[in-house]
Amino acid sequence: MLPTTMTASVLKAPGELTLERRDVPTPEAGQVLVQVSAVGVCGSDAHYYRHGRIGDYVVTEPLVLGHEAAGRIVAVGADVPTGRVGERVSIEPQQPDPDSAPSRRGEYNLCPHMRFYATPPVDGALAEYVLIGSAFAHPIPDTVSDEAAALFEPLSVAIAATRKAAVGVGDRVLIAGAGPVGLLCAQVASAAGATEIVVTDINPDRCSAALRFGATTAVGPDELPIDLDADSFIDASGAEPAIGAGIAAVRPGGRVVLVGMGSSSTMTFPVALIQNRELIVTGVFRYANTWPAARALVTSGKVDLDAMVTARFGLDEVAQALDADRTAGSIKAVIFPGRTGVTS
Amino acid sequence: MLPTTMTASVLKAPGELTLERRDVPTPEAGQVLVQVSAVGVCGSDAHYYRHGRIGDYVVTEPLVLGHEAAGRIVAVGADVPTGRVGERVSIEPQQPDPDSAPSRRGEYNLCPHMRFYATPPVDGALAEYVLIGSAFAHPIPDTVSDEAAALFEPLSVAIAATRKAAVGVGDRVLIAGAGPVGLLCAQVASAAGATEIVVTDINPDRCSAALRFGATTAVGPDELPIDLDADSFIDASGAEPAIGAGIAAVRPGGRVVLVGMGSSSTMTFPVALIQNRELIVTGVFRYANTWPAARALVTSGKVDLDAMVTARFGLDEVAQALDADRTAGSIKAVIFPGRTGVTS
Amino acid sequence: MLPTTMTASVLKAPGELTLERRDVPTPEAGQVLVQVSAVGVCGSDAHYYRHGRIGDYVVTEPLVLGHEAAGRIVAVGADVPTGRVGERVSIEPQQPDPDSAPSRRGEYNLCPHMRFYATPPVDGALAEYVLIGSAFAHPIPDTVSDEAAALFEPLSVAIAATRKAAVGVGDRVLIAGAGPVGLLCAQVASAAGATEIVVTDINPDRCSAALRFGATTAVGPDELPIDLDADSFIDASGAEPAIGAGIAAVRPGGRVVLVGMGSSSTMTFPVALIQNRELIVTGVFRYANTWPAARALVTSGKVDLDAMVTARFGLDEVAQALDADRTAGSIKAVIFPGRTGVTS
Amino acid sequence: MLPTTMTASVLKAPGELTLERRDVPTPEAGQVLVQVSAVGVCGSDAHYYRHGRIGDYVVTEPLVLGHEAAGRIVAVGADVPTGRVGERVSIEPQQPDPDSAPSRRGEYNLCPHMRFYATPPVDGALAEYVLIGSAFAHPIPDTVSDEAAALFEPLSVAIAATRKAAVGVGDRVLIAGAGPVGLLCAQVASAAGATEIVVTDINPDRCSAALRFGATTAVGPDELPIDLDADSFIDASGAEPAIGAGIAAVRPGGRVVLVGMGSSSTMTFPVALIQNRELIVTGVFRYANTWPAARALVTSGKVDLDAMVTARFGLDEVAQALDADRTAGSIKAVIFPGRTGVTS
Repeated sequence: MLPTTMTASVLKAPGELTLERRDVPTPEAGQVLVQVSAVGVCGSDAHYYRHGRIGDYVVTEPLVLGHEAAGRIVAVGADVPTGRVGERVSIEPQQPDPDSAPSRRGEYNLCPHMRFYATPPVDGALAEYVLIGSAFAHPIPDTVSDEAAALFEPLSVAIAATRKAAVGVGDRVLIAGAGPVGLLCAQVASAAGATEIVVTDINPDRCSAALRFGATTAVGPDELPIDLDADSFIDASGAEPAIGAGIAAVRPGGRVVLVGMGSSSTMTFPVALIQNRELIVTGVFRYANTWPAARALVTSGKVDLDAMVTARFGLDEVAQALDADRTAGSIKAVIFPGRTGVTS
Repeated sequence: MLPTTMTASVLKAPGELTLERRDVPTPEAGQVLVQVSAVGVCGSDAHYYRHGRIGDYVVTEPLVLGHEAAGRIVAVGADVPTGRVGERVSIEPQQPDPDSAPSRRGEYNLCPHMRFYATPPVDGALAEYVLIGSAFAHPIPDTVSDEAAALFEPLSVAIAATRKAAVGVGDRVLIAGAGPVGLLCAQVASAAGATEIVVTDINPDRCSAALRFGATTAVGPDELPIDLDADSFIDASGAEPAIGAGIAAVRPGGRVVLVGMGSSSTMTFPVALIQNRELIVTGVFRYANTWPAARALVTSGKVDLDAMVTARFGLDEVAQALDADRTAGSIKAVIFPGRTGVTS
Repeated sequence: MLPTTMTASVLKAPGELTLERRDVPTPEAGQVLVQVSAVGVCGSDAHYYRHGRIGDYVVTEPLVLGHEAAGRIVAVGADVPTGRVGERVSIEPQQPDPDSAPSRRGEYNLCPHMRFYATPPVDGALAEYVLIGSAFAHPIPDTVSDEAAALFEPLSVAIAATRKAAVGVGDRVLIAGAGPVGLLCAQVASAAGATEIVVTDINPDRCSAALRFGATTAVGPDELPIDLDADSFIDASGAEPAIGAGIAAVRPGGRVVLVGMGSSSTMTFPVALIQNRELIVTGVFRYANTWPAARALVTSGKVDLDAMVTARFGLDEVAQALDADRTAGSIKAVIFPGRTGVTS
Repeated sequence: MLPTTMTASVLKAPGELTLERRDVPTPEAGQVLVQVSAVGVCGSDAHYYRHGRIGDYVVTEPLVLGHEAAGRIVAVGADVPTGRVGERVSIEPQQPDPDSAPSRRGEYNLCPHMRFYATPPVDGALAEYVLIGSAFAHPIPDTVSDEAAALFEPLSVAIAATRKAAVGVGDRVLIAGAGPVGLLCAQVASAAGATEIVVTDINPDRCSAALRFGATTAVGPDELPIDLDADSFIDASGAEPAIGAGIAAVRPGGRVVLVGMGSSSTMTFPVALIQNRELIVTGVFRYANTWPAARALVTSGKVDLDAMVTARFGLDEVAQALDADRTAGSIKAVIFPGRTGVTS
């Protein structure tokens, strides 16, 4: 028997988080209700918490953060097999309109009518229960932990980036930024057969982490090997100097994928290089069709998500969790909505 | 019987052109000697003439300009069938190293050891005779005029751009700049099945020309239709505002191809748009594998090159030809090295 | 005010068609009700009529034929803007499950749960009214006739085939079979920039038609030019000898697209050729994301559908319409469900 | 000081091999002379030895076999830096015409004027010295053994196959045939991120080997998992039943790559499946641009070639080496032209 109310962590204003009692939502046709087991903390959550906005997305109403989530299906709406109740799932936190032109082309992440967790005005997963479309609740085997299942989301960003970079066997890949996404890009690039993976970061601790997660070289941005002649460059830093240096390191005909969101919507770009080398430059905006690959990479052991979790928190510790990135050596904090006081 | 000397138009310093007598060159193994019939004038020729440099390419020694050329094979080197003597040919003015990595991948235009006509220190085609690799002298049928054959070169740029823009049937294509390359891009985009071709230019005369060469709409940059939702944008202007506006007009997942070289090697770029819409941005640097398509488009009548020639000159009138772009209504000037005083 | 009943043409058994009164269906959420104006006759309709089956698809219950349809929206279900009522539309006759893996990848035509008009047990469009998903009812401008709008469907097959053949400007394309689909492939290949379009058919009348619809050469299968060296081959014949000869005519690295369904599920195939030339062989099964391109091609005049209609019938003349392909010179018959006795 | 004569193993007629003294060849411009250290035995060598032909390639003149070769550069022709003398190299045994259309497109393996080792009438590498184009002699580091360097050639076939199969992270790949090429495909597919690699072979010993070289499942052809739903199928068996079963196991939109040459140039093919699922079927004919990837995969340890060598022979033991595939457990035999009596 499901409870009728639940606890949710609500961002009321920048820096102001409260626990609230809310009604447990009811799944509509095609939806499932998931009891949330684990939620990863993303830099965007911390940014909303600290600044109340990301670019054009502004928090004007109370917002539940959290979009890296896993849990267990506890109820289903019409048109969903009741046999799904009880399934452990990783949540793909997007609800596109299947009839939009991008969705019909297979690029549903670019759907103009997207509803995405923790993006104003859509609430996220830092609550005991959440709704999601049935097809966006991906079953996971018992061998995958709750926290790993939650991290399928940032892993999906890395999978999308690696696909757009067209990483192939024997490739040289440059990655700028050794935060969680950069580290996951290193892991996925290695899984995709890249044999030289150079990661740059200004933080030596993060460089050390990179070497544990697939990088063959990890150096400061100023130590980027001359004549790297990279097949592709994935930016997970959002930093203009790193992007400029990265683009300059790519071979003719190579690829540049921008993942990291910078603080500005414009940037000085080396257009002559892009032209003269016919570089292919693109960006990653979320992901499409990545969860099956994420599950396969994790269950096969080709990607290790558990090792990336450096701190754990209860739902009453969201503020600490959001600030965990300020701790040296932190990679990824995870919040467990069903627990309190689990700090580790 | 070939003469032993010939006349060439030589750029000695910015603004200083002279006619010189030079030895007719002798084809090496794999090369052919071409008696030049027609040479199109490119903006880059005018730029070298006026400024003595383009970006990093600086004219430090006397240079023969001209890289849009056609003619007739009059002698062949070793390993070339003597039967080729007498063939009318369009010249692909590049000599890559077939063993370089880009050449082996099929991107020989990106070969780091490229020797390209009229690019310091390699002489171009404004002479009575030139050498070129046998496989880069493409035979043309009698139905193609000398001047059209010379213009296979800028047409090749447009073909390369249209390929990179992945123009398909029913596409909406935006083209910025209605100079010769922009107009050729409009023609090729139309031949490739684009059904809405919007060309922008600040010059109303050029807009009129665009409507004659495939554009379905031709307007000033400020009149760009709102919500154009273009499948692709080809920049043939090199102008930062046009590029910014063009990128903003592309649909999610669409393509941006930079053809026009701007005056600066860097530019302020709307990176947030590129990321949020996952646009694919690239550039065109010359071309590879375009001559067969150019020939087919011209002989089939799908592209009209003859109609683009607005002025004709002899080899003694190169300075006037290089300045022809200052005449209202000018599209393309052609020089006939075998003639003098043909101004028309 | 909508009527409550309507007339439908029902296939009861092979060769046995009757007009029946049926209830006008009611649109569910996301659906529209279309008053059918025109329905093209496809070879598959005639095949069901004559043989009661196509491969594994067997007519075991009464079936309404017809999947090439256009009409006017007369009612909408929940979640569909009422403003759509009155729109003239071309119907994309498929209803995939948007949550299936192929649909999410953009290949919704491959959805395993597809419901498709006139494919047992799903009824088609030879009725006065039909239901379709709102996003599959594509608005058309007044300049497009009813019958042309109906023929967006076979045109979509040709667009899909041409895309898979990767037809580019200046290409040589071989098409086997000059039935409606072959002729449409010729039109679309021409619109896509192919400059040499060779069509083969055993029927000289059809060869004549091919020359009116884009073919540059149209010959009997035995007269296929030696050394055609085609960039791609599209089979719209389903005939094993034509397929073998067509594959042999493709250049190394070229493409082969099978559109025509043969009578057998297997065929003797020249695998050594496919290997030695690294040909890329694939098939077309319906289409995805083609209607916008179809509309653009027709409204721009790049494809002419009206000229392909060679006979017109009322809903009381379906049997004659299905046999119209037995008339010399027939290309495409169209049925007008709102009329009777329109034979022309 | 180079000797003027050398020993070569010459196939005079089916089953008839002799050692002959021949002149050491002299490198022409652009070529290098390589002292051969190791030569892998390919099934095609054994086939020429036993049958005197492979399809249309017939041994009519004495032929030196062997095309999987490594060695050390001992002399260079004109236009090759003398500094290359002394380099250890892996030989890419093909000499295309760089001016052919396929070569210019980057598909130099499809060059119609190809000269390829051990393919009549071009001699192969079972000799003490061989010539090859400088750019086709790829330097290797000291960490790579001679025999591994020789096996870059079959590894290249596997790289080419995996690229054409578009293997991505998390993919399910089916491979038919666990001979050397099948095993290498399994290794490369694993390196490329495939997480489920099913290999089928009728030989249980070979199935065991497959599990050591990347397969996650290895079974007899009759035990192919139902509903495998493979993303791609690579045939390395050439066996018609295996190919039919493999194609049936591929998901809609998936890929089929034919590597193994069967005994016939035609085959009964499930065309309805190819059409209804829009499968993409192609073949691998040798390789292009694979050596850098091969080197990177081997030096990084992602592919293990040394473990595949199961027998070693001197140049006086070529007949035994060619028959080594008849020994149970044999994977790959290697011949060392500089040694005699090394059987191991």
